[in-house]
Parts: sequence; C-alpha cells; structure tokens
Amino acid sequence: MSEPTHPDQHPRTPSPRPGGRSARVRADVVAATLAEVTEKGYDSLTVEAVAARSGVHKATLYRRWGGVDGLVADALAASADQPWPLPDTGDLQEDLRRITQEVFTVFTDPEQSPTPTALIYAAQRSDAGAAALREFFAARHRQAAEVAQRAVARGELSAGTDGAEIIRAATAPLYYRLFVTGEPLEARTAERAADAAALAARAGLFTSAPADPEPDTAPTDPEPDTAPNAPTP
Amino acid sequence: MSEPTHPDQHPRTPSPRPGGRSARVRADVVAATLAEVTEKGYDSLTVEAVAARSGVHKATLYRRWGGVDGLVADALAASADQPWPLPDTGDLQEDLRRITQEVFTVFTDPEQSPTPTALIYAAQRSDAGAAALREFFAARHRQAAEVAQRAVARGELSAGTDGAEIIRAATAPLYYRLFVTGEPLEARTAERAADAAALAARAGLFTSAPADPEPDTAPTDPEPDTAPNAPTP
Repeated sequence: MSEPTHPDQHPRTPSPRPGGRSARVRADVVAATLAEVTEKGYDSLTVEAVAARSGVHKATLYRRWGGVDGLVADALAASADQPWPLPDTGDLQEDLRRITQEVFTVFTDPEQSPTPTALIYAAQRSDAGAAALREFFAARHRQAAEVAQRAVARGELSAGTDGAEIIRAATAPLYYRLFVTGEPLEARTAERAADAAALAARAGLFTSAPADPEPDTAPTDPEPDTAPNAPTP
Repeated sequence: MSEPTHPDQHPRTPSPRPGGRSARVRADVVAATLAEVTEKGYDSLTVEAVAARSGVHKATLYRRWGGVDGLVADALAASADQPWPLPDTGDLQEDLRRITQEVFTVFTDPEQSPTPTALIYAAQRSDAGAAALREFFAARHRQAAEVAQRAVARGELSAGTDGAEIIRAATAPLYYRLFVTGEPLEARTAERAADAAALAARAGLFTSAPADPEPDTAPTDPEPDTAPNAPTP
C-alpha cells in the first residue's frame, strides 16, 4: 500500500504539476486494487471495496475506470510503467539467466508472488484485462530485448535478431508451468530456459526472416486423427 | 457431441462388460460438460444444464461428480485418456516440429480451438480442475517423451535425457502466447520452438544432472529493486 494521501485535503491548491493530484489518486486506486485482488481474488473484487480502501469516491472510480475490469487493466498498465532492473553483464547467456532468475524469484517467493499471480489471473477474466495483459507483456518484451541489442552490438548475435523473441523463449518455460500446467517451478528450470534461449539465439534461430513462405494461419489438416476435444501436449 | 444414448432405456439389462453402462453415462456427461463449457464458459456452467444436455439425472451428477468442478476435472481426465498421434519420423527435430504444429493447429483452428481453450480456462478456476490440468499435462508430457526416448535409442541424444523436459521446452512458447500474454500465435513460432528445443536437447541441456548444487527454492535477494507488484517479463 502507498502512504495514505488524501486528495481532497487541498481542494483549493491544485498541484502545479500536470496530473499531480490525479496521479496521486491513481496511485492510491492502483494500490487498493492490487491489495483487494490479492486478498480476495477477481470474483470478490468490487468497486465499493476499492473505494473504501483507497479513500477515493465510488463515483470517481466508475467515472474514470468504468468498473472492476478497468481497475484491473489500469493496475497492469501501472505495473508496466514501473522500472525493473535489466541486467548488463556483458554476456547474453548470463543476462538471460538473471532475467529468468528474476521471474523465478518473483513468482516463487511467498512474499512477492501473490500479487502478480492474482493480477494475471484477474486480467484474463475480461477483454479489457486481457488487452492490458497483452500490452504489459509486449512492453516488458520490448524493454528486455535490450539485452539482445547489446549482444548484437558486441558481435555475439547477428544483426536482425528478434530480441523480444529471445525473451519470450527464455521466460515461456517458467510461465508455462506457473499459469498453464501448474507444475512446480524449480530454479534449474529458470537456468535451463535461459541457456536454451541463448543457444538458439546464437544459432540464429531468432533472426527475422526477410520473407515468410508460410502463411501465418493454421494449415488445414486433411485427416485430423486427434480427438477435437483433447488439448495436445 | 456423442450420439444421444439413453442410459435409462434398458434398466433391466445391465451391460455384461464391467463399467459398460457406467462408461456410456460418463461419455455422455463428459460430452455435455464440454459442450456447455465451450458455449457458455465456466461462469455459466451448471449441473442442471449438464443434466438436461446429457439426459443423466441431476442427482446422479451430484453423487458421482460432486458439482461443476468435478465435471470439469473429469472432462479433462477423459481428454487425457484419449489417444493422440505421436510422430515417428526418425528425426527428433522433425518429430518436435510435428508436435508443436499439432498444438498450433488445435489452438488456432476456429473449429478445434474453442473446446480445449475453454476447458483449460475452466480448469484453472478450482482446485479440482487445477489438479486435473496438472495431471493432464503430466500425462501428455510422459506420452510425448517417447520421441526423445527414440532419439536416445538412435544415438541422437545421450542417455539420461529428460524427455518430458524437451516436450515442455518445445511447447511452452506456444502456450505462453495462448494462455499468458495473449499475443497472436504464428506458424513460425511453432517451428522455431521445436527447433530450439531440439538444439538444446542435442547440446545436452536436458540431461538429468546427477546432483543439483542449487536448492530448488527461491534465493533471497538482498536488495530487491523491483517493485513487488510488477510482474517481470
């Protein structure tokens, strides 16, 4: 929780900085939304509870955020804006190991994991949340791609390497366990995933091909012999 | 949907095969659960609707499945029991490409994708569903690991290679987009993921280490400078 600022204490002295008071209100609302969704989950998230917790009027919440889904989406947008440490060890593999280690730590530490875990599940429950989730990860991929750009500059990777794709490759095995299969996440998984991504990147697997001969749509399988209801591995 | 069998039509002629009538009831209930969850989603899934659709008495559903979460869990368990085609091309990389291509097709084909997608999201909504989801993927990983065992037998991979881990590595980038980031899934992603997993497997990244010097728990970060509420990439 942020410190309890009271935006209505100085109604006649609006902040000289644009968005100053508005930014404080938003920070309070985001903090209250995160706390509520962490403690109670999406199914029990209400505008009333966020209003009570943040000290911001319910009418204001409805007007600016629309409802719970807008609150969840904005909490994700606020998270995307927060800086996070990007490693710069001078070695792609080591940089990737630190990134996957960070994901591992955030999602396995009992202190840190509940809020981002609850926020991701909550975001999946609405179109607005899903759009914010997509944008959140896109922003993180873009930011983290800098480790690949540095590797290109050092001559470790060839020009035209898709840095965001390396980040996805390195982190996907962790998120797959956390949010799809539910299998336990081990430290070794984080290291292996980073090493595999670095290996694939150095082998040139993530260079953007100038032209893609295959259409980006599902090919038609003339004889699907899998039961349509069975998710595959 | 399965054909509309009516388990109560022949109450005085129980099937001579053990579980014959019971198996038909289960197949009808699973089909009805899948149809309901696909059309209406978890939030609108009711035992009453599954009873009406399957022709199986509501009291029977409550007695044998407990409720909607038991129905979802059993639909997943039934999916896990269904056979699916395992490629055997004589080449690990090609086998993995076919596996990731299959996942790609199932989850991007408008005809095939709605049911497994809805089922996975529904399973995440309860402890019973999550346990069934974990078991479903564990079973699929075990089955698909056969492509790695064959590669070991051919001398393509060293003995002690963790086949399930290769399958996770190959498929995780697809499921990451589908169920975490929500980014569009492209055919090239499926091919790249298979190639990267094959490369890492051949480099020995997935051999089971005899002893793990690192504990499988989150290390304590003395100075966490990431905001705790911000999911990392």
